[in-house]
Amino acid sequence: MAEFNGLLDPEDTVMLLIDHQSGLFNTVRDVPIPDLRNYVIALAKTATLLNIPVITTASVPDGPNGPLIPEIDQYAPHAQYVPRTGQINAWDNPPFVEAIEKTGRKTLIIAGTLTSVCMAFPAVSAVQAGYKVYCVVDASGNWSKMATDTTIARVAQAGAIPTDTFAMVAELMRTWNRAEGSRFAQILADHVCPEYKCLIESFQKAQKVVEDGPETNLDKYQ
Amino acid sequence: MAEFNGLLDPEDTVMLLIDHQSGLFNTVRDVPIPDLRNYVIALAKTATLLNIPVITTASVPDGPNGPLIPEIDQYAPHAQYVPRTGQINAWDNPPFVEAIEKTGRKTLIIAGTLTSVCMAFPAVSAVQAGYKVYCVVDASGNWSKMATDTTIARVAQAGAIPTDTFAMVAELMRTWNRAEGSRFAQILADHVCPEYKCLIESFQKAQKVVEDGPETNLDKYQ
Amino acid sequence: MAEFNGLLDPEDTVMLLIDHQSGLFNTVRDVPIPDLRNYVIALAKTATLLNIPVITTASVPDGPNGPLIPEIDQYAPHAQYVPRTGQINAWDNPPFVEAIEKTGRKTLIIAGTLTSVCMAFPAVSAVQAGYKVYCVVDASGNWSKMATDTTIARVAQAGAIPTDTFAMVAELMRTWNRAEGSRFAQILADHVCPEYKCLIESFQKAQKVVEDGPETNLDKYQ
Amino acid sequence: MAEFNGLLDPEDTVMLLIDHQSGLFNTVRDVPIPDLRNYVIALAKTATLLNIPVITTASVPDGPNGPLIPEIDQYAPHAQYVPRTGQINAWDNPPFVEAIEKTGRKTLIIAGTLTSVCMAFPAVSAVQAGYKVYCVVDASGNWSKMATDTTIARVAQAGAIPTDTFAMVAELMRTWNRAEGSRFAQILADHVCPEYKCLIESFQKAQKVVEDGPETNLDKYQ
Amino acid sequence: MAEFNGLLDPEDTVMLLIDHQSGLFNTVRDVPIPDLRNYVIALAKTATLLNIPVITTASVPDGPNGPLIPEIDQYAPHAQYVPRTGQINAWDNPPFVEAIEKTGRKTLIIAGTLTSVCMAFPAVSAVQAGYKVYCVVDASGNWSKMATDTTIARVAQAGAIPTDTFAMVAELMRTWNRAEGSRFAQILADHVCPEYKCLIESFQKAQKVVEDGPETNLDKYQ
Amino acid sequence: MAEFNGLLDPEDTVMLLIDHQSGLFNTVRDVPIPDLRNYVIALAKTATLLNIPVITTASVPDGPNGPLIPEIDQYAPHAQYVPRTGQINAWDNPPFVEAIEKTGRKTLIIAGTLTSVCMAFPAVSAVQAGYKVYCVVDASGNWSKMATDTTIARVAQAGAIPTDTFAMVAELMRTWNRAEGSRFAQILADHVCPEYKCLIESFQKAQKVVEDGPETNLDKYQ
Amino acid sequence: MAEFNGLLDPEDTVMLLIDHQSGLFNTVRDVPIPDLRNYVIALAKTATLLNIPVITTASVPDGPNGPLIPEIDQYAPHAQYVPRTGQINAWDNPPFVEAIEKTGRKTLIIAGTLTSVCMAFPAVSAVQAGYKVYCVVDASGNWSKMATDTTIARVAQAGAIPTDTFAMVAELMRTWNRAEGSRFAQILADHVCPEYKCLIESFQKAQKVVEDGPETNLDKYQ
Amino acid sequence: MAEFNGLLDPEDTVMLLIDHQSGLFNTVRDVPIPDLRNYVIALAKTATLLNIPVITTASVPDGPNGPLIPEIDQYAPHAQYVPRTGQINAWDNPPFVEAIEKTGRKTLIIAGTLTSVCMAFPAVSAVQAGYKVYCVVDASGNWSKMATDTTIARVAQAGAIPTDTFAMVAELMRTWNRAEGSRFAQILADHVCPEYKCLIESFQKAQKVVEDGPETNLDKYQ
Repeated sequence: MAEFNGLLDPEDTVMLLIDHQSGLFNTVRDVPIPDLRNYVIALAKTATLLNIPVITTASVPDGPNGPLIPEIDQYAPHAQYVPRTGQINAWDNPPFVEAIEKTGRKTLIIAGTLTSVCMAFPAVSAVQAGYKVYCVVDASGNWSKMATDTTIARVAQAGAIPTDTFAMVAELMRTWNRAEGSRFAQILADHVCPEYKCLIESFQKAQKVVEDGPETNLDKYQ
Repeated sequence: MAEFNGLLDPEDTVMLLIDHQSGLFNTVRDVPIPDLRNYVIALAKTATLLNIPVITTASVPDGPNGPLIPEIDQYAPHAQYVPRTGQINAWDNPPFVEAIEKTGRKTLIIAGTLTSVCMAFPAVSAVQAGYKVYCVVDASGNWSKMATDTTIARVAQAGAIPTDTFAMVAELMRTWNRAEGSRFAQILADHVCPEYKCLIESFQKAQKVVEDGPETNLDKYQ
Repeated sequence: MAEFNGLLDPEDTVMLLIDHQSGLFNTVRDVPIPDLRNYVIALAKTATLLNIPVITTASVPDGPNGPLIPEIDQYAPHAQYVPRTGQINAWDNPPFVEAIEKTGRKTLIIAGTLTSVCMAFPAVSAVQAGYKVYCVVDASGNWSKMATDTTIARVAQAGAIPTDTFAMVAELMRTWNRAEGSRFAQILADHVCPEYKCLIESFQKAQKVVEDGPETNLDKYQ
Repeated sequence: MAEFNGLLDPEDTVMLLIDHQSGLFNTVRDVPIPDLRNYVIALAKTATLLNIPVITTASVPDGPNGPLIPEIDQYAPHAQYVPRTGQINAWDNPPFVEAIEKTGRKTLIIAGTLTSVCMAFPAVSAVQAGYKVYCVVDASGNWSKMATDTTIARVAQAGAIPTDTFAMVAELMRTWNRAEGSRFAQILADHVCPEYKCLIESFQKAQKVVEDGPETNLDKYQ
Repeated sequence: MAEFNGLLDPEDTVMLLIDHQSGLFNTVRDVPIPDLRNYVIALAKTATLLNIPVITTASVPDGPNGPLIPEIDQYAPHAQYVPRTGQINAWDNPPFVEAIEKTGRKTLIIAGTLTSVCMAFPAVSAVQAGYKVYCVVDASGNWSKMATDTTIARVAQAGAIPTDTFAMVAELMRTWNRAEGSRFAQILADHVCPEYKCLIESFQKAQKVVEDGPETNLDKYQ
Repeated sequence: MAEFNGLLDPEDTVMLLIDHQSGLFNTVRDVPIPDLRNYVIALAKTATLLNIPVITTASVPDGPNGPLIPEIDQYAPHAQYVPRTGQINAWDNPPFVEAIEKTGRKTLIIAGTLTSVCMAFPAVSAVQAGYKVYCVVDASGNWSKMATDTTIARVAQAGAIPTDTFAMVAELMRTWNRAEGSRFAQILADHVCPEYKCLIESFQKAQKVVEDGPETNLDKYQ
Repeated sequence: MAEFNGLLDPEDTVMLLIDHQSGLFNTVRDVPIPDLRNYVIALAKTATLLNIPVITTASVPDGPNGPLIPEIDQYAPHAQYVPRTGQINAWDNPPFVEAIEKTGRKTLIIAGTLTSVCMAFPAVSAVQAGYKVYCVVDASGNWSKMATDTTIARVAQAGAIPTDTFAMVAELMRTWNRAEGSRFAQILADHVCPEYKCLIESFQKAQKVVEDGPETNLDKYQ
Repeated sequence: MAEFNGLLDPEDTVMLLIDHQSGLFNTVRDVPIPDLRNYVIALAKTATLLNIPVITTASVPDGPNGPLIPEIDQYAPHAQYVPRTGQINAWDNPPFVEAIEKTGRKTLIIAGTLTSVCMAFPAVSAVQAGYKVYCVVDASGNWSKMATDTTIARVAQAGAIPTDTFAMVAELMRTWNRAEGSRFAQILADHVCPEYKCLIESFQKAQKVVEDGPETNLDKYQ
């Protein structure tokens, strides 16, 4: 299906969630931290829903960078954790690349904190290694907005595709016409686009008013 | 204690959560909607923790304004809902004022969507009626930032005290030296200041490293 | 009713729309011009709905300041135009003050372009002359945002009440429980808070789906 | 004419207006909602003026996404609506692509809400299918500004041309030297660039002053 | 006239331009530097036009603070320069206060760089000494925007009136119905509100078209 | 010299200043209008200094678009004005292209209001016609910031080089080691980077202090 | 001296630096963290220079709030640390108030992280207790900008004076005409207004060029 | 190693720090000046740590541009200074290019003030001369944000890689698993990402609490 329309093929995809650590999160200045946490959760839940392999890793998690946020394992329990021995670019860590190769898949979704380092370096390396690479910029988190602007230009120049969390979930989902349709909607409403949660609540209330009748008793008019 | 230092007395306080409705939330432009929802939850949980009476009301919830967000009842199950018969200023609705009077308390915490209407009008009326009034500006949500700027000036001019959600929770909490200390911390970390959640996670990890030893195996150096 | 709760009394109110001219509009930098035009329309329509006297004036409209925007007369055909002979502060123009005095009303709603001049000067003068004054800051339009910030502080310091268009309409409307309820809603949706227009459309569609059944034909699931 | 200068040829063009729905509009954070509505109207009116085929579609309009905004049919009554059966990428819906193919035209103007999904996915697919594609970014509306930044980079990388509503109307219009000249001007003034409306009013007033003489009576000088 | 409407009386006014020095200007972050320079020029020209006494002073101009900008003397050649012997608050310099007292006037217009120091300190001191004080916030220039926000609150709290350059010029001018009317307009167009310059040019062109006929030769239509 | 380092060759360059008209300037929202006017002056003066041919044109200057700003002719009196007969893309006007061709030069500097139309369309056309094209984005002025963002991407995608006024002047100037060195500095200080004017004033004062001795008399210390 | 001009008297002043802790700093969103750290250093150094008593305290520094930043003790070694037993408002801690009372001084400079809590609560309490209170808003650091806006209004309403770091240092310094003049300048250049550091460097270089002659060898011109 | 993953090879790299001068710094508007100074220090220290050749130059440092900031020589004492004879593009200065060629290295890291001139011009020239070029956008400093936006597009279009200071340091560092690991961390914490400094302090404190026990004595609970 991906061949048909230029979008990615979930069957060919691996998700790399790199260095989403509590300490590093406190250095993020381009995405509000709670949003960032939610976007990572959205990716994790989507991968779980579609049985997409998830590979995680952390940069010196026993130092000030802090631990991986617990939500990744919580919402993607199948995620494989590959420890590093100090490499900044996860692609420099042979076990990390081997874990990807073992899946036999050639499309990568990459999110990483910091965007211009932990997301960008493996993206550049993976494109060079022949992978089709999607960079989820807003599920990554960077130390400055200007650094993110340069990174969008850099990864696009290198041939990786810049995208955002909502688009990534939608590109994986492809259609509402599937059994998991409402579960995708729930992910988007809960973690990516909270305005949508309001829409659902209002929609259900509007329909309930038809069924149950109005409740506001205006004294004089209606 | 409040007499002593100019801050409010939780024993004398009623919390008014006015018109936090899903439809109205989608008109809010000064506070991100998920933040707004969380700030209201924080107020609701704090009121529950301290047994502060909560009074809610809604403006024509069977129309496009939408239903009250469900989290208020969920986290403040003791909240009393007072229906209105169309009044925009909740203070114009006699049952609403009577509900406040029944508590015998004279300090009001008011949050309402929209800030310049549903929060500001009752605040002005309550000051005139002799109440001490706190306006929680960022738990209210307004249709424009400029409207919020004018509203801060207006309610301060009228004698109501403008404040924010974090300050409100802290002013109610007063001290960490109480049985509920950690529960307040949890409210702030979960709903008001998510950076704090990262700090807790990092703090615990740092201490765990002392106890369990490091986990990063650098090949050559440490 | 106004006495009761500190809000204004529409029966005691005159609306002054000062120098909303096409040329001056092109100098406005604190409010998007189309929004400004709509906010003025909203005030004009509201005044018409409530039979509130409207007095307009213009500053040298036969020069680069340009003509009064045509929408004022269009939506408040009862507006009285008082020409000036060059005075910047409309209050310096005796016929303008006399027109106000003839109404016998003592509460003024003032909007004017530029905010820090055409709105602020008459507001200060009117407070000194014993009027209760509301300044509609976002229906005024100023040459810079910092000028608006100083003006909010200045008029509040002088004793005038700073407010915004939505709050002004709502303060005049007071309740949905009146014959004109839906017409107020239409004013707000069309001219002040366009997000509300979406809510109405979605609300009606949601109810229509209950009545007519769904229209999306998912091939496999629903 | 298009061949001559690199711009598009209106005779070869189809306009795709995808998922401009009231519910989705309330999730838009990169373009003010009233502006977005106006930009879509501008495209619709321009297509009508030039007899450019318009194809619309909606994503589950009987759910919280809400109905198509009514203005599309109102201002482009010749628009063909193609229902979808759940596909997120309209290009995945064979009847949608067939409708385009039936026109025999090979240049597409695409606007869609959300930008990074409903506009970007069909744009990428259409480029792959050999079409020349224009993406009208500000007539699309996205859930976050950062998502729009990544999308501009993505569609440009894919070979689609990013543009804006004013430029799109102007590129279709090509010259004032045509019978419909003033109607294009009216579209731009009413829906895209309201400052222009002020300029027209001021221009006409300035000319009227020459014809009718001045109206401001200064007491002492002129 | 000032008594009548609460605005200042130019006959009772002295203008204090404090520490507008080239070095200090390069520390200004709340107003664009060219705007700041122009606003000071506007004040200087207005004072000259109305024969308002101007008193200037500088803070250690032979050090990195740099010289007074030359435009003050250029456009207000009657300005009296009072050297200081190191005092930060100009009011602490007896010759400076004496120069003011010699004018016998009791209303002060103060602008100074930095706003929160050189404008605010003398403003607070002058209010205490019984003067009516206007603070021209945007003709002052501050080292940070937050510092300006606190300063507006501080001087308003102290009883000084915060205002902006346009409002100041207009409050001094009072009416277009005076011999110098067009010279005030020129000051505003050249130095305060450059959009106005465009309006004048467009206005004159529009009138010239009536007199001379159109110049655009459309081939086919008009 | 240009061949040597990839920068443009002034000897091969023509400057196109398109549609810098007073009316259109009032629609500009991405660059402050006085800055825009100054940037155009800087380009005009630079062209004059280097004897670079300048070609101007205007879009319906006898309508609301208004006249060309007078500063172009004032500072580039050698500019050739080519009237159009309604074409939006100046490249569609054969006399305009012929005027360029007559110079025999193949590098174009283009600035135009609006950026996404009057600058972008001729830029795309000229690249197609084989010219090397520089787009001076901030000497152009656009109706919205998002439109400018898309335009930078569009013209870069088309092969034109996006740049800014300061860089353009510097790229033409190439070296301070030329007779006109100080005149370039004056252009930059007066019209592009006013902070530089402060630097010059401070620099001269600092040197004067060495020559003339200090002037601040501190009573006690130095 | 303070009596004379309404500014504070350093001899009557105590500085309270409350809860400037590394963990809390990572929750600050209204002031860049490095700036905040520098502003606190500036206050500490100034207090040391003037022998102003400094009292510090921390909120649960053995938890996620983290330790006091080390710079306070480093630059104000005379600072007295008063531990708290959990009180959020430092004024609720009797030993803290006693430490202030022991100084016999009645003017307080307060900075605290978070602004709307740790700075605002003691400020309100101290005003009630009869102190003259200065709130240094930008040496405090808050969890959101809107919270800071409400806090400026709140403390001003309560009678405390809002100010900024630069103004505070200048108000304490009062004059350059003192032995410590250059040390104040160094504090401002190093920690508050780094643009000033550039000015000093440029000033010295300009004077050195006079003394040593120029160093740029232009080949052809000078 | 660089060959392996597409990142640069420090062994093949030269760092060019161009025109970081005190006067020019005061014209920078896209990066806060203290941040800019720190980013340059970070690059200098990193080069020193890795023995990467550094070449500096300055543009007319005996004029208003001011001297090179002293920190470059302070932290990269091995830096070679190449004087220019007026050339704006350092690449136009033969001794500058020769200095690069003498190193025999083919990868360049370029930072320069102003970004769109002093960084961009040599970047374009170096790419044309066959070098692999990294542009450190935020260690450069530009006169306007829009100029930076155009420059990112321009250098990417030319084939140079846009990046930021943090990414540059990390790309040079490559791994924590090296003797200098902690020195890199110190550079980042001190000069690039000060939030990290807080994390280190908090991390150490958290571990100290485990070792030494808590210090807060709550009266009643813990």
